[in-house]
Amino acid sequence: MAYIIIGVMGPGSSATPTQIKTAYALGHAIASAGWVVLTGGRQAGVMEAACQGAKAAGGLTVSILPSANGADRSAAVDIPILTGLGDARNVVNVLSSQVVVACGLGPGTASEIALALKAQRPVILIEMPPGAIALWQSLATGPLAIADTVAVAIEQIQQWLAP
Amino acid sequence: MAYIIIGVMGPGSSATPTQIKTAYALGHAIASAGWVVLTGGRQAGVMEAACQGAKAAGGLTVSILPSANGADRSAAVDIPILTGLGDARNVVNVLSSQVVVACGLGPGTASEIALALKAQRPVILIEMPPGAIALWQSLATGPLAIADTVAVAIEQIQQWLAP
Amino acid sequence: MAYIIIGVMGPGSSATPTQIKTAYALGHAIASAGWVVLTGGRQAGVMEAACQGAKAAGGLTVSILPSANGADRSAAVDIPILTGLGDARNVVNVLSSQVVVACGLGPGTASEIALALKAQRPVILIEMPPGAIALWQSLATGPLAIADTVAVAIEQIQQWLAP
Amino acid sequence: MAYIIIGVMGPGSSATPTQIKTAYALGHAIASAGWVVLTGGRQAGVMEAACQGAKAAGGLTVSILPSANGADRSAAVDIPILTGLGDARNVVNVLSSQVVVACGLGPGTASEIALALKAQRPVILIEMPPGAIALWQSLATGPLAIADTVAVAIEQIQQWLAP
Repeated sequence: MAYIIIGVMGPGSSATPTQIKTAYALGHAIASAGWVVLTGGRQAGVMEAACQGAKAAGGLTVSILPSANGADRSAAVDIPILTGLGDARNVVNVLSSQVVVACGLGPGTASEIALALKAQRPVILIEMPPGAIALWQSLATGPLAIADTVAVAIEQIQQWLAP
Repeated sequence: MAYIIIGVMGPGSSATPTQIKTAYALGHAIASAGWVVLTGGRQAGVMEAACQGAKAAGGLTVSILPSANGADRSAAVDIPILTGLGDARNVVNVLSSQVVVACGLGPGTASEIALALKAQRPVILIEMPPGAIALWQSLATGPLAIADTVAVAIEQIQQWLAP
Repeated sequence: MAYIIIGVMGPGSSATPTQIKTAYALGHAIASAGWVVLTGGRQAGVMEAACQGAKAAGGLTVSILPSANGADRSAAVDIPILTGLGDARNVVNVLSSQVVVACGLGPGTASEIALALKAQRPVILIEMPPGAIALWQSLATGPLAIADTVAVAIEQIQQWLAP
Repeated sequence: MAYIIIGVMGPGSSATPTQIKTAYALGHAIASAGWVVLTGGRQAGVMEAACQGAKAAGGLTVSILPSANGADRSAAVDIPILTGLGDARNVVNVLSSQVVVACGLGPGTASEIALALKAQRPVILIEMPPGAIALWQSLATGPLAIADTVAVAIEQIQQWLAP
C-alpha cells in the first residue's frame, strides 16, 4: 500500500525566519505522524527546512527538483526526483501530494496553490499574508483550510485522511 | 526574425460574458497590431474568444493545448501545439509569450500569472477582481501593469516592446 | 481551420553534411507544399537546416525549444515556443506534428521516433542508418515509411493526408 | 544522504513472460542490494514485476506515473509520483535513476534508453533483442553495458557506483 505523501510548499531564498521555523516544525510533525514529506527539494527556505524537520523526526523525504542534475538539492532529501522541467515540476509537486500545505507565499508557491486548487487537491494555508487568503478562498472549489498553528494543520490533515 | 507573440490567458468555461467580450477585443487588437496571439487553446471562455477575435482581424493564432490529441481545441487556432502535459503546459504558455495578458481570474489563470511573475515575463492584468490586484503586485519583481481598457493594454505592450 | 504541421527531427551539432543538405531540401519541399515546418528549433544541424529551407521557400516555421529563454534558437524560426522542459519537449515535438520526418539519427532523434511510434503518429525515416530501420519497423504499430529521397517523403505525406 | 535509485524500464502490457520473470528478479536483487527501485509505475509488465520483486525483498519502490490521478498504478508502489505528463514523464524516469536498466524493448522503453543515452545516464540492457543492441551502442557516448543475467547487471551497477 502506498505511503501517505504530504507536500510542503513555500518560498526558497526569500523565505522569512518565521516561515522557515514553521516549515521545520511542519516537516517534523508530518514525519512524526508517519507520513512522507514532499517538497520542491531545493537547498533553500521552506523546502530545506521542511526536509530538515522531517529527517530530525526520522521521516522519509521526497523531492521534485527543477534541475536535471540535482545540483540544487537539499542534503536532507532521501528520494531526489530529478525532472529537468524547471517550474513545470510545480504541477508534479501538487499532484503527488495527498494534501498540499503552503507555508508562506512567493510567486512559485502561488502557482502551486493555484494548481492544487485547479486539481482539487486539499490545501492548507499557513503563514499566509492575510491579503492573500480571501483570493485563494475565492478560487477554491475543493477543500481549503487556514491553519494558525502546525498542530491545527496536522489535525486538519488527519481529518481529511480519515476514512 | 521571430514574430512577436502575445499571450492571452483567462478562465475557460467559467469565464463571464464581460471577460469573453474583452478577450475577443484583446485578440482583435493584438492581431491588428501585427502580433501573434497565443492562448491555452481550448474551445472555451477567454481562450476561444481571444482566438476568434484574432482571426476576425486576420491574425495568426498559436495555442498550447493540454491534451495529446487536440480534441479540446478551438476551431480558431491556426497552430495547435499538442503537449499531453495537462496543466504543466501553463508554463509553456507564459514562457512563449513576450507579454502575458491575464483577462479575468480562475485557478488556472492564477497559476499562469504566478508563473509569469516568477519567470519575470511582463504581465498585464485586465478584468481582474480588485481584491486580486494587490496580491499580484506584492509578488511581482518584474514588469506588471493594470489595464482598464483594451486600448490601454495595447499601448502598454507597445511601450514594453519599444527598443 | 488549423494548418497542417509536419515535424522534421534529426541530429543537432552531430549532423552530417548529407543530413543537413537533406534537411534543407525537406524544409523547402514541405513549405512549398503549403505545410508548416516544426522542429526542435535549436541553431544546429537538421533543425536549423530544415527551418532555413522552409524560409527560403516562403514557409512558416514553428519550433519547440528546450530552453526557457530561447537563447538557443535558430534565426529561421518564426514561432519560437519556449518550454523550459529540456528533452521532455521531445514529446511535444511529435504530438504536435501530423507526420514526423526523422532525418538522420542521434539519441534525441531516436527518442522522438520512439515517442512518435508510441503515440502512433505517422513516421517517415530518411537518411536513416540501415541497421536502425529494422528496429523501428519492429516497434511500429502505426504508419511507418522509409524514404530514399525528399520527393518520396513528400509523396508519402500527401498520401497520408489525403481524405 | 540521498538513497541510491536504480531505474527499471520495460514494456507494459506487451511484456513477455521471460521479461516479466527477469524484471521481478531485477527488482528483488536491486532491493536486496539496498537500493531503491524506480519504475514508470503502471500496473503492467516490467514495471509491475520489478516493483513486486523489490517489495518481496523488503525494498522501497518509487514510481513516476503518467496519469494525474494514479488510477493506473501498481499496488506494489510505495511512493507514487503523479505527473499528469503522459509520456513526457519518461524523461523524469531516466534523470532520477543513477543507473537505468532496460529489460526488454517496446517503443516507450526505446524512448527511455535514448533519453538516458542523451543525458549520459549509465544504461544496462537485459533481455534486449539482438538486433537492437548494436543501435544503442552506436548512439552511446556514455556508459552502456549488456547483461546476460541479473547477477551480471547487479555486478555492473556495483562497479559503476563504486567510489
